[in-house]
Amino acid sequence: MEGTGALFQILRDGVPRTRSELATITGLGRSSIAQRVDALLGSALVGPAGEATSTGGRPPAQFAFNPSARITLAVDVGATHVRLAVTDLAAHVLVTDWHSIDVALGPEKVLRLVIERGRELIAEASRDVGALIGVGIGLPGPVEHATGKPRNPPIMPGWDGFDVPAFVGAELGATVIVDNDVNVMALGERFVGFRDVDQLLLVKVATGIGSGIISHGELHRGADGAAGDLGHIQVPNGEHALCRCGNRGCLEAVASGAAVAVALRESGLEVATSRDVVALVRAGSVAALHAVRDAGRTIGEVLASAVSLLNPSVIVIGGSLSMAGDPLLAGVREVVYRRSLPLATANLRIVQAAAGDRSGVIGAACLVIDDVLAPAAVDRYVS
Amino acid sequence: MEGTGALFQILRDGVPRTRSELATITGLGRSSIAQRVDALLGSALVGPAGEATSTGGRPPAQFAFNPSARITLAVDVGATHVRLAVTDLAAHVLVTDWHSIDVALGPEKVLRLVIERGRELIAEASRDVGALIGVGIGLPGPVEHATGKPRNPPIMPGWDGFDVPAFVGAELGATVIVDNDVNVMALGERFVGFRDVDQLLLVKVATGIGSGIISHGELHRGADGAAGDLGHIQVPNGEHALCRCGNRGCLEAVASGAAVAVALRESGLEVATSRDVVALVRAGSVAALHAVRDAGRTIGEVLASAVSLLNPSVIVIGGSLSMAGDPLLAGVREVVYRRSLPLATANLRIVQAAAGDRSGVIGAACLVIDDVLAPAAVDRYVS
Repeated sequence: MEGTGALFQILRDGVPRTRSELATITGLGRSSIAQRVDALLGSALVGPAGEATSTGGRPPAQFAFNPSARITLAVDVGATHVRLAVTDLAAHVLVTDWHSIDVALGPEKVLRLVIERGRELIAEASRDVGALIGVGIGLPGPVEHATGKPRNPPIMPGWDGFDVPAFVGAELGATVIVDNDVNVMALGERFVGFRDVDQLLLVKVATGIGSGIISHGELHRGADGAAGDLGHIQVPNGEHALCRCGNRGCLEAVASGAAVAVALRESGLEVATSRDVVALVRAGSVAALHAVRDAGRTIGEVLASAVSLLNPSVIVIGGSLSMAGDPLLAGVREVVYRRSLPLATANLRIVQAAAGDRSGVIGAACLVIDDVLAPAAVDRYVS
Repeated sequence: MEGTGALFQILRDGVPRTRSELATITGLGRSSIAQRVDALLGSALVGPAGEATSTGGRPPAQFAFNPSARITLAVDVGATHVRLAVTDLAAHVLVTDWHSIDVALGPEKVLRLVIERGRELIAEASRDVGALIGVGIGLPGPVEHATGKPRNPPIMPGWDGFDVPAFVGAELGATVIVDNDVNVMALGERFVGFRDVDQLLLVKVATGIGSGIISHGELHRGADGAAGDLGHIQVPNGEHALCRCGNRGCLEAVASGAAVAVALRESGLEVATSRDVVALVRAGSVAALHAVRDAGRTIGEVLASAVSLLNPSVIVIGGSLSMAGDPLLAGVREVVYRRSLPLATANLRIVQAAAGDRSGVIGAACLVIDDVLAPAAVDRYVS
């Protein structure tokens, strides 16, 4: 019913309200409010929430968002793993699970695991697949958001153009929303730590480097879903570094976890991955500390440009190399604060990611919830 | 009246519609539609637009947006000029005027000119000041959009923190919306040439260099209104150039109209401003052609990063140096297409500004119209 979704947005903050409070907020008449509240009660998206105190007479009934009405399946596909979670409609994780699997095995193998383990996880949460309102999926490559199809993903052979929503939706019978892993991580980190921040930049520093941009509280995906691609911006003095994209001097060829690991290995240390680099930093290796701080400085060169262009209020640094903590952040901060104009950094915070390895699934839950609980979607859902 | 503004948005495309067509589009009942159409007719924002063809019986009346119901005063304040225009509610320029004045004379002198000439211009358009629905103003410096106050504007002594909306609003009795000149120009260029483009970057290359970012069809202003500040991003090999901001190697210290003029002057040519540079290019000076193309390449280095980050579908190059045309655009395109990943440039167009010196006033009209005709504003206006 037209207007029910708009009314529902008011209730999504979880605060219980009476019919007359809702009438005051919206300016709608008593009968319009009554109709829409009834529709929402019928859908179970909203439930009774006790009674308000009365100034005399029968106390008026209150209503509130009921996040446990339905569930989501939230999926974070990495290069070598899949993390799954079942969440309620407030993106609260009910159960979660982790599997080692190579994304290069192709979409059918990986997504079959998602479907099978998804079903088991829903049962583990003592819910029914019928309670599923949607599936949110983050993939480690470019995704055409409108269709949910990967577009020339460099590390995902066999996935190009694969209809992920159709494949998963046919099995699980729910809306499927797909985006790239960094956008999903940005949603997750915002949800966990910065719900009131409308201008946020999430930078993932791992094997590669990428970013998710939140503008006006929404993901900025750009014209082709390619926005936030920090990893292939050219950095000063990087000409020696050949990037997997074919260009020279790209940020991720110089300052990613993989690039730092290569540099340390060449200096005789035993490191293969960003996780090994982090372990060395934690063990107090001066060479590793130095290399990570230098990577932070180089990332800071690119982020200084991003700050001039986007003027975010928060930059969140995540990804496996960010577990190195202070040395990486110190390098980033040093250059960003030196290179950016005072107006753009006056209120800027540069912080480490807070949600850890759960930011992907929490973000995937936000991705699908924002879609299925949008006003027009709720209008259709309750009709 | 609640919901009237939402109904009005449907009519803003100018297409005449009947009450029953509006009921079908909105899902609202006959009496709700009738009430709201009456309210809009009463405000004159919507007017009768003839009759639809009938399938028998009395033909139903049609209604359409009436852009001449009210007017705006649109103001483009530059470093050394003020351009004014009176427009209708569709941002169509009715009359326009240009004055030479130094912005450094301070806000009271400049804004008094705006108010006095604004009144005369409204009379010239045979309208009354009472018909003014709002005033849109672009200023050549950072503006805190929420308050309309300039924030530490480098070339505007006396303007810092000045309450522009209060000063102008007290005299003209209308809503006053202020933004920086590059954001306003982005709105104007989008309106004139790219109304359907939701991801656009407007780059102004003049005495300085700045940009206005349109994301999801709206200006991306950033946390402090400082977004789009391309001019102070560091460029490769620019260390020789000291910028007015105190840093070295900023884009505008190397590739602005002023920087190109200085370089040509040092090589013995007689040039003072970007306009002189453009005149030399048009006269076929090889040195000027070369310098402008080189400036384009340097701007392209920064725009390649902006493309990776924002993935716009259109980059519009405006400002006085853009009048040099092809040599500047060729330099920009050469570097952007070489340095950006294929996915981000597959559908990218890089074009010269189309609205010429009117983009500022057209954009200022759009700025204020978008505010005063927003759904909630119309709800209040017609009640």
